[in-house]
Amino acid sequence: MTPRSTDTATLLVSCRDRTGLVAALSQFIAEHGGNITDLDQHAESDSGMFFMRLQWSLTTFTLSRSAIEEALAGYARRFELTWSITWGDHLQRVAVFVSTTPHCLYDLLLHQRLDDLGGVIAMVVSNHLDLADVAAHFQVPFMQVPVGAGSASARAEAEVTHERILADHQIDLVVLARYMQILSPEFVARRPGGIINIHHSFLPAFVGAKPYHQARERGVKLIGATAHYVTAELDQGPIIDQDVCRVTHRDEITDLVGKGRDLERRTLSRAVRLHLQRRVLVHGNRTIIFG
Amino acid sequence: MTPRSTDTATLLVSCRDRTGLVAALSQFIAEHGGNITDLDQHAESDSGMFFMRLQWSLTTFTLSRSAIEEALAGYARRFELTWSITWGDHLQRVAVFVSTTPHCLYDLLLHQRLDDLGGVIAMVVSNHLDLADVAAHFQVPFMQVPVGAGSASARAEAEVTHERILADHQIDLVVLARYMQILSPEFVARRPGGIINIHHSFLPAFVGAKPYHQARERGVKLIGATAHYVTAELDQGPIIDQDVCRVTHRDEITDLVGKGRDLERRTLSRAVRLHLQRRVLVHGNRTIIFG
Amino acid sequence: MTPRSTDTATLLVSCRDRTGLVAALSQFIAEHGGNITDLDQHAESDSGMFFMRLQWSLTTFTLSRSAIEEALAGYARRFELTWSITWGDHLQRVAVFVSTTPHCLYDLLLHQRLDDLGGVIAMVVSNHLDLADVAAHFQVPFMQVPVGAGSASARAEAEVTHERILADHQIDLVVLARYMQILSPEFVARRPGGIINIHHSFLPAFVGAKPYHQARERGVKLIGATAHYVTAELDQGPIIDQDVCRVTHRDEITDLVGKGRDLERRTLSRAVRLHLQRRVLVHGNRTIIFG
Amino acid sequence: MTPRSTDTATLLVSCRDRTGLVAALSQFIAEHGGNITDLDQHAESDSGMFFMRLQWSLTTFTLSRSAIEEALAGYARRFELTWSITWGDHLQRVAVFVSTTPHCLYDLLLHQRLDDLGGVIAMVVSNHLDLADVAAHFQVPFMQVPVGAGSASARAEAEVTHERILADHQIDLVVLARYMQILSPEFVARRPGGIINIHHSFLPAFVGAKPYHQARERGVKLIGATAHYVTAELDQGPIIDQDVCRVTHRDEITDLVGKGRDLERRTLSRAVRLHLQRRVLVHGNRTIIFG
Repeated sequence: MTPRSTDTATLLVSCRDRTGLVAALSQFIAEHGGNITDLDQHAESDSGMFFMRLQWSLTTFTLSRSAIEEALAGYARRFELTWSITWGDHLQRVAVFVSTTPHCLYDLLLHQRLDDLGGVIAMVVSNHLDLADVAAHFQVPFMQVPVGAGSASARAEAEVTHERILADHQIDLVVLARYMQILSPEFVARRPGGIINIHHSFLPAFVGAKPYHQARERGVKLIGATAHYVTAELDQGPIIDQDVCRVTHRDEITDLVGKGRDLERRTLSRAVRLHLQRRVLVHGNRTIIFG
Repeated sequence: MTPRSTDTATLLVSCRDRTGLVAALSQFIAEHGGNITDLDQHAESDSGMFFMRLQWSLTTFTLSRSAIEEALAGYARRFELTWSITWGDHLQRVAVFVSTTPHCLYDLLLHQRLDDLGGVIAMVVSNHLDLADVAAHFQVPFMQVPVGAGSASARAEAEVTHERILADHQIDLVVLARYMQILSPEFVARRPGGIINIHHSFLPAFVGAKPYHQARERGVKLIGATAHYVTAELDQGPIIDQDVCRVTHRDEITDLVGKGRDLERRTLSRAVRLHLQRRVLVHGNRTIIFG
Repeated sequence: MTPRSTDTATLLVSCRDRTGLVAALSQFIAEHGGNITDLDQHAESDSGMFFMRLQWSLTTFTLSRSAIEEALAGYARRFELTWSITWGDHLQRVAVFVSTTPHCLYDLLLHQRLDDLGGVIAMVVSNHLDLADVAAHFQVPFMQVPVGAGSASARAEAEVTHERILADHQIDLVVLARYMQILSPEFVARRPGGIINIHHSFLPAFVGAKPYHQARERGVKLIGATAHYVTAELDQGPIIDQDVCRVTHRDEITDLVGKGRDLERRTLSRAVRLHLQRRVLVHGNRTIIFG
Repeated sequence: MTPRSTDTATLLVSCRDRTGLVAALSQFIAEHGGNITDLDQHAESDSGMFFMRLQWSLTTFTLSRSAIEEALAGYARRFELTWSITWGDHLQRVAVFVSTTPHCLYDLLLHQRLDDLGGVIAMVVSNHLDLADVAAHFQVPFMQVPVGAGSASARAEAEVTHERILADHQIDLVVLARYMQILSPEFVARRPGGIINIHHSFLPAFVGAKPYHQARERGVKLIGATAHYVTAELDQGPIIDQDVCRVTHRDEITDLVGKGRDLERRTLSRAVRLHLQRRVLVHGNRTIIFG
């Protein structure tokens, strides 16, 4: 799922299932000289919903992007579609929020260096200075926004700053890479499907604080990590990806933390890449992942 | 991937990629009142090949099956398609070949009892009598076809019997569920994509005999199993599914055999179900699996 | 971990860690001509606990079993050990409780047929007759104990019968292989570490009823199964083993149930085998597993 | 398996199995006031070999290190042991050899930054300058040793330089983190068990060049990575760790390379950490891993 050709369009669609949807959309593409390179569609028998990801080559396409969007808006009215289209040459801009632990940040920035992220990490934001050197090494701007000792006014002030810099840098996606501060409901509400968090447990097990301690206490045989969109309710947003690894009684808390770091960074990076490559469709409180 | 609705058609297509394929086929389905329930299509950028699995509901379809086949033959000529269509109410008939170890046979028959196989195990064929009770328990006919001490004439005679009973019972698929005899090249050649074998290693590692001994000798940290179509070359046919599990130095040969049994039966059952549910497309020496 | 030599002793020990424990016990074994074949010991730095599994060959041992037990009782007083010893030729006797779904029962009985269970399935107990044929096929006694429509008196009567037959057949371990009835707190309290259940989720996620529905609702990307000892609190007992598998949006409830069956049976069988091979040590509400 | 207490001794032993080995060694430790914190021992029934890892606390130990070594030499003569002892406060010194791809190097250096490597990366050696910035960022010396266009004399000259800097910096372990040059048989022969390589396939499948191309060609459903000690024969040395991940037909070569990078770096880091934490015992051409 490495991103490749940039001269493509990717269409995500969800709607009530009905006859003729694929035909109408594929016909539209063929008529204007487009070639479908990947199509993944499924209609759920239980919910009656239709989900589709469709990618086509624009190399020989005869319509402009605005004409495509206009045409799709017409189909959307006719079929009552929820849809979005993105262009292969438009890279989403990402702000990574961190506190002091570097493992998730390194992983995301390494993918950027390897050119297989599918977006652009435009800046790193932190309430601490600990990871400024990491951002500098990867030549990404680093901005410290202190949150004080967590007083309400310090938080409110920090949020004003956050909003300003996200706007200034035209950020599309906020990634919480072990950012240990709580965001306000308003900040979250302004970004539905626009904030990804990594929780260090296999949700819904062990919500809240100190999940590795909870896991050790409960005696589970696998620990996990969960990347999800942030919503108003803590640890309850739509799950994008999860992974687990096996643990034994030899794994004390520091071992769980160590094994967990490997899980967290690879789960978060995978989720961010799925999002940036437009492989995630949010439907209610779950996601459809197009692999 | 449990098989469900029977009033469906499943179309598998492979060809050189070209513009308009999806549009033409989905248009054909929509025109005649069909509703696509699942479509999975991918065009390979390296090989230039187009692969698709398309499933649609026949409940309100206005064409007969023979008319569908005729229409598809027309598309096939026009687009140079390799294609096959199957009907949800047609269950393929399977003959399971075994020798003396029961684990794979039990697994397949259990899936049949649980009604999630996607085909019908019409008979069990063996060179020994050891597993006759298993077949009887699941009420599946058991046929012993001795192979003698492996003499050429005994083999040839056994093959004549095999061919006769496979024909008499209209068998579509032969599954070698730890059948410890070699089939003749002619028998194999008559059934391209029609014989599935389970090999007890992660192919292409450890081809040939005693793979667990080879694995122990080489000191691998994971052992595997591979389900593949049988071709003229031993252990070289298209791979359908593979799985692995972790081993340690505490695992001696008997332990590897025990862990391997769990791998073998679940890998073989999964491969057989993928085949029966028409999720496998063979292209050259590899398979495209539609998950 | 296939069971092998029968002429062995297996000692499980837990206690507060202190100097000289391994030396004292290994010295005792060496003095009397025993050879340690496997020893797995760990002292936890956080809890200060010492856990050990020690297996030795009795072939040339000069003490009788009763003398061994007497000697160990002495060490236990001196070092304040919690301990148990078992003999390789003593196979624990198992009663498998089932209702109507056969997959876990088949798996356990198949391991018995393959002779790698490490115990004896002495009977199958059910509130229904559906699986009588499975027990008969594997030549294991089947006993139907109806529970009525769940009335208190019917339950109480069933429990009297259960207790009688478990006593009559000298059952060491009760395995709930998708037994859909609740056991009384008294029945459970009489068997600490003596009842193993399979729960069809990755505990502590999705306790209670319909875990696959809960999983689908929450949109998790992996489903799981958990084998655990039964305690007074539902789904809260010490976990023996867990496993997971990946699911996608194509997996509706029936698919989750199907994938879950594969998880449930292999997780339950593995847990039962670990228990029967004396690889499980219960400490508080968690287990130490000696792999 | 995070490294923790430094005031410990770790003893690795292999020998022909015989009665009294554990007793003698644990007695020795207890006599001098040591407390065993972890002991993992196994005698193989097929080979008759005895393998053990024993870790004990030196905090209250009454013998000096040289006295311990002297005593162990005595046991070694008596029991014909192959053994090694290491001290928790002695960190092995590692040289990482790289060419141009950074993913494995980042992973190792990140573990060092997180302080859970168990050794010290003392330098990075490369035939190119591409990764000098990575070493600099982590404040590790970087040394470029050009190999020319692969001429014999350039190679010989490079090797002289390698030997000199390895000696100057007292390097214990060489890690080939996607180093694309071949080492001379003499260089390898001087370091038995002292060079770890990552091969980007599930060995013994796909030895040699371009394993991802081989994997794609063969149509495997899982790709793998293997960390192993380097010996005279290419890709044939003792395996330390392996891992795999699932691939589909949507994964073309660049995707396999991308997925493979995640496998390679985590497999190599795990192997290096196992080595540095003295959890690897080499016996013939296989390794015993104490988890």
